[in-house]
Order: sequence, then C-alpha cells, then structure tokens
Amino acid sequence: MSQAAKKAVVLLSGGLDSATVLAIAREQGYETYALSVSYGQRHVAELNAAAKVAQRLGARDRRQMQVNLDGIGGSALTDRSIAVPETPTTGIPSTYVPARNTLFLALALGWAEVLGATDIFVGVNAVDYSGYPDCRPEFIRAFEALANLATKAGVEGARFQVHAPLIQLSKAQIIQRGLQLGVDFGETVSCYQADAEGRACGRCDSCRIRRDGFAAAGVPDPTRYQA
Amino acid sequence: MSQAAKKAVVLLSGGLDSATVLAIAREQGYETYALSVSYGQRHVAELNAAAKVAQRLGARDRRQMQVNLDGIGGSALTDRSIAVPETPTTGIPSTYVPARNTLFLALALGWAEVLGATDIFVGVNAVDYSGYPDCRPEFIRAFEALANLATKAGVEGARFQVHAPLIQLSKAQIIQRGLQLGVDFGETVSCYQADAEGRACGRCDSCRIRRDGFAAAGVPDPTRYQA
Repeated sequence: MSQAAKKAVVLLSGGLDSATVLAIAREQGYETYALSVSYGQRHVAELNAAAKVAQRLGARDRRQMQVNLDGIGGSALTDRSIAVPETPTTGIPSTYVPARNTLFLALALGWAEVLGATDIFVGVNAVDYSGYPDCRPEFIRAFEALANLATKAGVEGARFQVHAPLIQLSKAQIIQRGLQLGVDFGETVSCYQADAEGRACGRCDSCRIRRDGFAAAGVPDPTRYQA
Repeated sequence: MSQAAKKAVVLLSGGLDSATVLAIAREQGYETYALSVSYGQRHVAELNAAAKVAQRLGARDRRQMQVNLDGIGGSALTDRSIAVPETPTTGIPSTYVPARNTLFLALALGWAEVLGATDIFVGVNAVDYSGYPDCRPEFIRAFEALANLATKAGVEGARFQVHAPLIQLSKAQIIQRGLQLGVDFGETVSCYQADAEGRACGRCDSCRIRRDGFAAAGVPDPTRYQA
C-alpha cells in the first residue's frame, strides 16, 4: 500500500506567484488544499482566476473564505476612496493591506489544523515585490513560532512549517519555474484594478512588475490587457 | 490643551471576560475601539450583547467583521454536526476553534494599524478557562513579536502591545473587577449555545465556569437561563 500523500494548505490568490506555489507544492508530492480569501479587494477577477488555477493544477479541494476588511479601510486595495498608484512610489505603498498576510496565514493555519496538515505554502516574495513588511523571511519565521504555540496540534507536538518557495526568486525566475511546472499564466490575474473579465490595467505596480518579469524571462506575456 | 487619549482596539465578544477588558481599557485612559467577529459561531446572541456592552462602556467605535470559519469546520462552536459538550472533559475540548485567537488578533492588528494604534486588548485567561492553547501568555508574546514584523507601523519603529489583563485572574476576580468598573454582566452572554434572546443553556463548559465564578465571587448571578 502506498503511503498517503502529505496534505498542504496553499494560499491561492489567483495571481502569478501563488499559482506557481501551488504547482511547486504539487511537484513536492503534497496533496494540495487551496485557500482563497475574499477580503473586499477591488480585483475580484483574481478570485475567479484562483478557481481555474486550482482546477488545472489538481488541487484536492478549494475553499474561499470571506473577510470584510473593507470595513476597516486603510488600503488602496480595499478602500475605493484611496487611488491605486500608477507610478512607482518609494517606501511602503498605499496598496499595502494592514496585517493581510498575518490574517491569511491565520486562516490557512485554522484549515490546516482541521485537515491534520502542518504544511502551509504562501507565495510571498522579497525580491520583485511591492515592499510589504509581511513578505519578509523574518515574518514567516515569526508566524511559524506563533503557529506552534497557537494550536492544539502544536501543543501536541506538531511543528508547523510555512513554505515560501518564491521568497528569494526574481519575477523572471518565478515565471520560468511556473512554466516548467505547467502553470498557464494566461489564467492568472495580478492587476490591482483588473476589470470584471480579468483584463489588466497595465499601469499599476503589480502590472509593471509582472510585465517586466515576462520580458526578463524572455517569454511572451499572456496577460490580457484592457483596451 | 489636553493630550489626545491613546487609542486601543479591544476584542469584544459580548461575553463576560471581554466586557471586563473593555472597562479596564477605558479605566486605563484609552479611547476604545471595540472589534467583534462573527465567525459562524452558534452563539450569535453574543454579538448582540457586544453591541450593548460597547455602548454602555463608551467605546468610541465598534466594528463587526465577518469570517466564515464554518466553511472549514472542526469545532463544536462552528460546526453543527459536532455537539457542544455538557460535561467536563479532559484535554483541549471540542469547542476549541482552530487558530481563532490568531485570527482575531490579526483582525485587531489590521484595524489598529489603520487607526494608528499600537495597543490591543484581549480577554484571554489562563486560569478558569477551557484549556485552549491560544490563551497562554507565551502565545500573546509570540503574537506581539509577529505584529512588529508584520506591519508598516512595526517597520517604522512602532511597538505593538497586546494587553491581556485577565490572563492570571480567576473568574471570580474578573467578575469583581468588572463590577467595580460598571460592567452590567446581565447584558453579557457567555453560553456556547445561547438561544436567540441570549438565554444561557446552563449546562455547557462556559456556563459552568461562569456560574461557579459568580458563586465564588459571592455576588448574584444575573444570567438569564433557558427554562
């Protein structure tokens, strides 16, 4: 009898990075459980993309959780009174969503515990990224420490591991890795202000990083842009 | 000109403990922002109680956030197929909600950052409690460490503090403290399976701890019980 595959919860936004992470988790032999979070973000097209990506990459299950972060505002991604910047900015930009990755990892941790999983995958990246504090390796390590103290499983001796396989990769490297593993980037949506059909604005920070990534990887950009 | 009061986010469930914590935060001079979380719990009467308590104790604002934790199940509080135990159990009971306090603190952290606050109050208790891992002092300290790494404010030098003023108090001591500070415990709901009017079952773990607390404090129990 073959050993049952180890389960992993994979945070799947529907963007380029998390799609690649899902493919990596599968390649490493995990049975994957994709978790998408609807948090009042402008770009709901991302969530539709997540469903397609999860299916293509063979996720065992996918859940979508709702959190009304728009109720607290404070970010261009959840508060329509704050504009998405279309020129590069210095420092932490207005698209930063307060405590977003802490929240996402908390939700992933809850589902992992229910599943009996101790592995969580997340597509944070500290190279070609927007300068968010909760994308740094020290944040990931602090969350692992918290997870072991926070949970029934941790008390009983489980050791949670948060895998961030993209953390030191450039966007071009992420794209090359995803293509090797069968990700269809045409299905993914990265734009902070995509339209309802998932077409990208081509002007926001996320679009700029993504387009530069395809150029640097030397592969065609499959992104559908708004006219 | 008097100095503006320091802001604090207070997690307010509508139960006895968090009502006392809100009163303590106010007594310490904070301008309080009460955060209630609707997470698919059986006891929605608690949330109605939270609104009354916030008003009585002068919270500057109150927000209610929705998270559909019932989508992942795993707890007697969110999954109707798991019974709420009515006799004392050993170990971590089935009312444990995976990663609940991690999630609640993540939401509080997000709102704190939007408000420019660095103080969060939470009513966790390590004495007369149900044996949950995320009610221990080491969990609170690990969350503070995470918060400083997770946030824009932390990167900019802010130091978040998670206040758990009840952590070493007995239920009787909490009740005495709350009464001194004007909490109306008749408005609070602790029962894991209260009815829609907030009447308590009188049989669950939470009811038992609460009733014993009033007895030990030597004060009348104002709880409304089901017939």
